[in-house]
Amino acid sequence: MSIKKNDIIKYHKNGPGKIETRLKTPINSREELSLAYTPGVAEVCKNIYKEPEKVYDLTSKGNTVAILSDGSALLGLGNLGPEPSIPVMEGKAALFKKFANIDAWPICVKSSLNTQELAFMIKNISPGFGGINLEDVASPRCFEVEDELSDLNVPYFHDDQQGTAVVVLAGIINSLKITKKNASDLKVVINGAGAAGVSIAELLDYYGVENIVLCDKEGVLKNDNVYHFRKNKMICKNIESVSGKLEDALKGADIFIGVSAGNVLKADSIKKMNNKSVVFALANPEPEINPLTALEAGAFIVATGRSDYPNQINNLLGFPGIFRGALDSRVNRITRKMCISASRALADVLPEKFLNNNIIIPDVFDKNVVKNIAIKVAETAIDEGVSYYSKNHKKKVRNKILLNLSK
Amino acid sequence: MSIKKNDIIKYHKNGPGKIETRLKTPINSREELSLAYTPGVAEVCKNIYKEPEKVYDLTSKGNTVAILSDGSALLGLGNLGPEPSIPVMEGKAALFKKFANIDAWPICVKSSLNTQELAFMIKNISPGFGGINLEDVASPRCFEVEDELSDLNVPYFHDDQQGTAVVVLAGIINSLKITKKNASDLKVVINGAGAAGVSIAELLDYYGVENIVLCDKEGVLKNDNVYHFRKNKMICKNIESVSGKLEDALKGADIFIGVSAGNVLKADSIKKMNNKSVVFALANPEPEINPLTALEAGAFIVATGRSDYPNQINNLLGFPGIFRGALDSRVNRITRKMCISASRALADVLPEKFLNNNIIIPDVFDKNVVKNIAIKVAETAIDEGVSYYSKNHKKKVRNKILLNLSK
Repeated sequence: MSIKKNDIIKYHKNGPGKIETRLKTPINSREELSLAYTPGVAEVCKNIYKEPEKVYDLTSKGNTVAILSDGSALLGLGNLGPEPSIPVMEGKAALFKKFANIDAWPICVKSSLNTQELAFMIKNISPGFGGINLEDVASPRCFEVEDELSDLNVPYFHDDQQGTAVVVLAGIINSLKITKKNASDLKVVINGAGAAGVSIAELLDYYGVENIVLCDKEGVLKNDNVYHFRKNKMICKNIESVSGKLEDALKGADIFIGVSAGNVLKADSIKKMNNKSVVFALANPEPEINPLTALEAGAFIVATGRSDYPNQINNLLGFPGIFRGALDSRVNRITRKMCISASRALADVLPEKFLNNNIIIPDVFDKNVVKNIAIKVAETAIDEGVSYYSKNHKKKVRNKILLNLSK
Repeated sequence: MSIKKNDIIKYHKNGPGKIETRLKTPINSREELSLAYTPGVAEVCKNIYKEPEKVYDLTSKGNTVAILSDGSALLGLGNLGPEPSIPVMEGKAALFKKFANIDAWPICVKSSLNTQELAFMIKNISPGFGGINLEDVASPRCFEVEDELSDLNVPYFHDDQQGTAVVVLAGIINSLKITKKNASDLKVVINGAGAAGVSIAELLDYYGVENIVLCDKEGVLKNDNVYHFRKNKMICKNIESVSGKLEDALKGADIFIGVSAGNVLKADSIKKMNNKSVVFALANPEPEINPLTALEAGAFIVATGRSDYPNQINNLLGFPGIFRGALDSRVNRITRKMCISASRALADVLPEKFLNNNIIIPDVFDKNVVKNIAIKVAETAIDEGVSYYSKNHKKKVRNKILLNLSK
């Protein structure tokens, strides 16, 4: 599918923009005015002041997400700053509503903020929102800011990190069903050591992949280099102590995951991979290798970030369901276990008998995607004890999710 | 009209809350997805990066307002903090949409912020919004923060200050038409020297009222006391050097404006006022004096903040039109002249022949209110040179306002 520049501009001029507000309740009479605003609203304020948990019953907080960006790593475009990031954040807000009935609003802050200032912004807008989705913030700041947010009262999620990792892992889970390989036996090479690459490595590690080699444009990262990003965790398990360039790392590898730049993967390198090799060439708009070239070179499964090839690894498959589940179970954070559950739920949308080399991941318009992920994420959160609800409430939470998705 | 607590709670539980988001543009196909989000949206980002002004043509920014509060002076309830302020800010957002088709979103920040931190928050969320409406922030912080915002690129407005002042002045303008008095001959006594009282004094001063006595609960403020709030301006013109209590100040006064507390005005004090005295007893929910008592004591015109008496001085008469005009003329700030224009436009909604003691201010559901104010505010902004548009564009801006209000 080719889209024309004129059509894109026209689509955005129409609004202009893509989201607006709408009243949930009528204000058509003096009486309704008194209920919605003064003097009636004072009663609601007093109720929440006395019982803070009532903010979830009496306001929109529990269904809202702030999409916060400084535009410092905007799409593949670099640091363009806050105003040029608005169309992306608005688009995301539109997708939150369309796919998960979540009310998200863009908060585009200046890109000159340091880590502490960014954390300050996030903490201080958090009382009014049910969750925070960080978007397109450059690394290492996007990692550093997390360390400052441990006392945040609402769930926090960086879509370029956890969001991407969840969808990639889902694709891997289904690829393993086709290739009949085990996670613990895999050698995975990730090219790109920014927000996405590091987070994918972390989630794969947590899932049970033991041999992970992380590369950037200089070649294989030493463990020390990776360690630098995450103060308290060793995330790279380069157990064979591979060194050299990407092509060296790929010898005998089962899976290549590219979150780097267009055309950096050579066909020859694919030829050196293990049998039934899996290539996720996720750079946008130009993948690390043309999918047809990869298949000709012997790749068994190829996925990209694009909608015009099979197997589109798209973040849109993750965040709506993850947030629907997190909001409806009222978690205080989004854990790795919840992310793993999201990946499994996403993978399981496709029954095993329907899987093949060209169908490893569901379609974004498949209604089961958000529903399955939301329910599993909420259940995991309850089991882990990071939810407001106890195990007795699983059915109630499930019904809440289904109700919110049916509206 | 009496509203029941149960009805208020039920009204808020229904949503829960009062606002949600809505898509302005459809996302029902893979193609629309590519236009709204990746990869198409990158084109829009690049456009705005190259030509920053295009943010107004291609995103929602130009029609959005952040309603920012720390809940430190929430209604008449005091400092309840951010979460209890959500229902008020949501209500305000609903009114912005209902009355002016403006997309406003609550930003409820922690009430422990100092002036610099609050200014930092405002500056840093401003790139994503077309305007900032500060709400229910206690004085003197609400005054101090303004001094920090001189380089803000979008219009800034504190509804409890300028918003209240605009509507009060409109009521005074029409009262003068009835009492046949001139602004320059008036003696005005304002009781309450917080955000509203000080701002009313400032706007009346700017309008041409020369004799203003400002009182707080201790009695008449010395000029020095008032001066303290506003570093660079003398706002109180106690030209007769009145001292003592409120009742002393009221001797011979033409107008009493109460933005203080219930039942602090005695009937005897009204008897000492000038003939054709005007009493604005605006404390909520309990006015400074019962309107009937005031009339019996000789007040010629009585107004309150309540909807169950005649002459309701309600902020809702001001902010929707002021912001509609400010957004559509793309001002960088809201000036006193724009506020005076708003007051005049609001007063003029009622033709002089319809004015009487019980009808000095239009009904909030009168469609002409927002339209008249918005057009006059925009025209004044253009004349003053604080608008993006030049005088040649007045008709274009007017049509934009009418179009936005017709949607």
